[in-house]
Amino acid sequence: MEIQLYDTTLRDGAQQEGISLSAEDKLKITRRLDELGVHYVEGGWPGSNPKDVEYFQRIKALSFSNVRISAFGSTRRTGIRVEDDGNIQARLAAETPDVTLVGKSSDLHVLRVLETTLEENLAMIADSVSFLKKQGRTVFYDAEHFFDGFKANAEYALQSVKVAAEAGADCLVLCDTNGGVLTAEIADIVSLVGREVKTSLGIHCHSDADMAVANTLAAVMAGATQVQGTVNGYGERCGNANLLSIIANLKVKMGIPCVTDEQLAGLTEASHYVSEIVNIPPNGQQPYVGVSSFSHKGGLHAAAVAKVEGSYQHIDPETVGNAKRVVISELSGRGNIQHRLNELGLADKVSREQVVNLLDKLKVQESKGFQYEGAEASFDLMVRRGIEGYKPPFDMVDFMVLVENHRRVPTNGDQEDMLSEAVVKVRVGSQLMHTAAEGNGPVNALDNALRKALLGSYPSLDQVKLLDYKVRVVDQGQDTRAVVRVLIESTDGKAQWQTVGSSSNIIEASWMALADSLEYFLIRQE
Amino acid sequence: MEIQLYDTTLRDGAQQEGISLSAEDKLKITRRLDELGVHYVEGGWPGSNPKDVEYFQRIKALSFSNVRISAFGSTRRTGIRVEDDGNIQARLAAETPDVTLVGKSSDLHVLRVLETTLEENLAMIADSVSFLKKQGRTVFYDAEHFFDGFKANAEYALQSVKVAAEAGADCLVLCDTNGGVLTAEIADIVSLVGREVKTSLGIHCHSDADMAVANTLAAVMAGATQVQGTVNGYGERCGNANLLSIIANLKVKMGIPCVTDEQLAGLTEASHYVSEIVNIPPNGQQPYVGVSSFSHKGGLHAAAVAKVEGSYQHIDPETVGNAKRVVISELSGRGNIQHRLNELGLADKVSREQVVNLLDKLKVQESKGFQYEGAEASFDLMVRRGIEGYKPPFDMVDFMVLVENHRRVPTNGDQEDMLSEAVVKVRVGSQLMHTAAEGNGPVNALDNALRKALLGSYPSLDQVKLLDYKVRVVDQGQDTRAVVRVLIESTDGKAQWQTVGSSSNIIEASWMALADSLEYFLIRQE
Repeated sequence: MEIQLYDTTLRDGAQQEGISLSAEDKLKITRRLDELGVHYVEGGWPGSNPKDVEYFQRIKALSFSNVRISAFGSTRRTGIRVEDDGNIQARLAAETPDVTLVGKSSDLHVLRVLETTLEENLAMIADSVSFLKKQGRTVFYDAEHFFDGFKANAEYALQSVKVAAEAGADCLVLCDTNGGVLTAEIADIVSLVGREVKTSLGIHCHSDADMAVANTLAAVMAGATQVQGTVNGYGERCGNANLLSIIANLKVKMGIPCVTDEQLAGLTEASHYVSEIVNIPPNGQQPYVGVSSFSHKGGLHAAAVAKVEGSYQHIDPETVGNAKRVVISELSGRGNIQHRLNELGLADKVSREQVVNLLDKLKVQESKGFQYEGAEASFDLMVRRGIEGYKPPFDMVDFMVLVENHRRVPTNGDQEDMLSEAVVKVRVGSQLMHTAAEGNGPVNALDNALRKALLGSYPSLDQVKLLDYKVRVVDQGQDTRAVVRVLIESTDGKAQWQTVGSSSNIIEASWMALADSLEYFLIRQE
Repeated sequence: MEIQLYDTTLRDGAQQEGISLSAEDKLKITRRLDELGVHYVEGGWPGSNPKDVEYFQRIKALSFSNVRISAFGSTRRTGIRVEDDGNIQARLAAETPDVTLVGKSSDLHVLRVLETTLEENLAMIADSVSFLKKQGRTVFYDAEHFFDGFKANAEYALQSVKVAAEAGADCLVLCDTNGGVLTAEIADIVSLVGREVKTSLGIHCHSDADMAVANTLAAVMAGATQVQGTVNGYGERCGNANLLSIIANLKVKMGIPCVTDEQLAGLTEASHYVSEIVNIPPNGQQPYVGVSSFSHKGGLHAAAVAKVEGSYQHIDPETVGNAKRVVISELSGRGNIQHRLNELGLADKVSREQVVNLLDKLKVQESKGFQYEGAEASFDLMVRRGIEGYKPPFDMVDFMVLVENHRRVPTNGDQEDMLSEAVVKVRVGSQLMHTAAEGNGPVNALDNALRKALLGSYPSLDQVKLLDYKVRVVDQGQDTRAVVRVLIESTDGKAQWQTVGSSSNIIEASWMALADSLEYFLIRQE
């Protein structure tokens, strides 16, 4: 079976709250979709806004290996001649090989939203399709609200797509625009339409009932050959069908060769690339491509995966460019810890008994608010500190932090009157460093003072930069005595590592995570 | 059709990376699930860790309207008598009416993961089920990897559940443990099993192929009567089937009365409540319950929805306790503010011009990290401070916070060496109060010192208690200079109110929220 992959990230995906794409963003996404092997990219509504005008202008100069660009828009407006419709003319001016034409299949929408007659709507569809066909375009006809329309008035919905087919449409795309139709209904209706018309069918689903991917596959099994979706499922309301999940399911689960093996292996990277561009943090749990999609936290699962790779994984993660991870937590068993020790190259330095002790220690620490899942460097240090003969590169003697406000805090949050100062005393070998620094908050002051104290002994610390600082209250529902957990992400320009601290005193929690970050860097250097 | 709703948030959901639930958290979630009308709650693995021990101990004293608690664990271990199995004994000791027993259906897992014989596995299932039945428990038998096992060796998979049925299991729950099975396969296999055994069937799906909800519904249509899932779809890897989506689909789309209309109307609130407890920000796009699930981003859709409410919504959002939102331009902000002023009873004290100024101020504040959606008391104060003649009940002159550590910070997080001290200077009328207090963290110390300074003038402050203290980093991706937002929830035993502070200095942000909380209480008293 041959399936056409049709992406609408640039049009339907961009309707998601918080997404706003420049023409340059759209070009980048188009190039990445081309590499992924997608067949059609819906570029936007030509003429509707300056960004889409620029996109269609610039895309003309580019050539692609796989992708063909489609220009989107409605059927002609009611009561005018198709050649007088500005939107239809704008679509022609975009000079794309393909156009996508959206029209109404639901009598409710025709009568109450468009406020025209059922006959005029059919004429609008027929006129628009045949006009664009005469101009030599491939025409995809998107039948909006097709399934809801069919359930309310099957005859009219069918008639609306038959009219498009007779006017020469190349594909009839049946849309579950409101996203609420059940899988079984989708399958039945697609089959029925397939028996009524000979034109090939497409499917366009939304996630409002949490079933867009399954509904898309059900339509394919019922005969649809074009699948529409968006990267990462972006889209208005609950989003569109996730095209990446669809691609993986078609290829891996249904054996339909819609992309090559190499292209499929780029799936995870494509997901992250686009999420960077739209500036929405990747969903770690996203099927196939999430950072947690092949993570094992439960002790039994981790132990089983160590024995039989596929025991708790539905596919080999490398197929989609992802990787297995074993997570360390209080739910871990000895197996998770052993696995991590192997990764750290410390397995031979830690006895079986010490592994049990480590597991106990881990549980105690987690009950105090520590969490090592996102702080593997702190776990690494916990292991090393338990190994005989470990010498930490520095030793904290004491510290003091002072935050002073010497006039009324201005209610608008300006900080000119705030002073934050930290004093630290640190031992390196036999030397005692005692120094102080300011910062624009107490944690920043501590950070500055600690680096200042250590830089003489360890000039390489200069390379270490903090990338991220996160604070989370662990036991919500408490007052200001609540325990907080601080996670710090650091880099030396090459590697990245994360450390954790936890305490009801946020300064102390931050201090722990900071000190771990620098200690980890220093021992890795040795 | 009658459907049993079975929640495993506390066990399978807690396997999600980043989730760590205390016994108290688990009790709170259980109570909320009871209100929602869920029939079974899987509490955890009795005896496996101190939190689950505490949960099963404390739950005994509670009674519920709908929920029955189930204790989870494996069949007996290989090669021992069932009565000698510690885990099975721990399940009995939990004294729950129901137990859930997980066993193997896949020959691969029996031979290569459990490393026992196919016969011994069947004996393990039979022994464990009949032993627990003899103790008077309802036994749910979770057939792990049932679908994968069936696809590889249908005869053995079927035999494994038949053995459980013959031993008296009350329900055979077919599990897609790895989450990769297609909807059509689920439907076929459930139907087939239903023809082979008379015991009622359950379904347990995971989201690895992005189809868990659809797969669950397909199983129900094929005859399954128990559905397992987790709140918000929490779970290992890509998560479990989202029980909230399932409930809404069963009730609204399939007409199965699994919860009452009132319970369904609590769906959105239940989702947000649990996301607060697990401390994972709610997904705005989550089907049915997300803040964007019924949002219309302007243009054609918003206009259509204004004409015909259901034109771009699959259901009436109020059915699930959600609401329509029209995402509109900044121009409509004035309307929002006016709406809020009416609610506060301040509309007649604020001129049209002042409303415009307030809107500008709001935008400036939000750009600095403040957020008034969850902090209406701080918004109220911002309004009042702009009204001529407003006299604040107290005036901050200055403060100082000192955090000292006078020996090495113990790596296990003990705090005996930490000192946190705050000095505050506050003016009340013509009096200047200057005092100091300690606390078990800098914010707690500030809180204590401020109350101490004010209590003489305002003895009623005694009634004010802080309920919750939350910290969120606003601009993630920054280092320790990141801006943090502090939200504080307070009560006087009757009303509750929330206040906000924001700064790159966490002490200052906390101070702002604290001072607002007390000021708000005092002006409301007048």
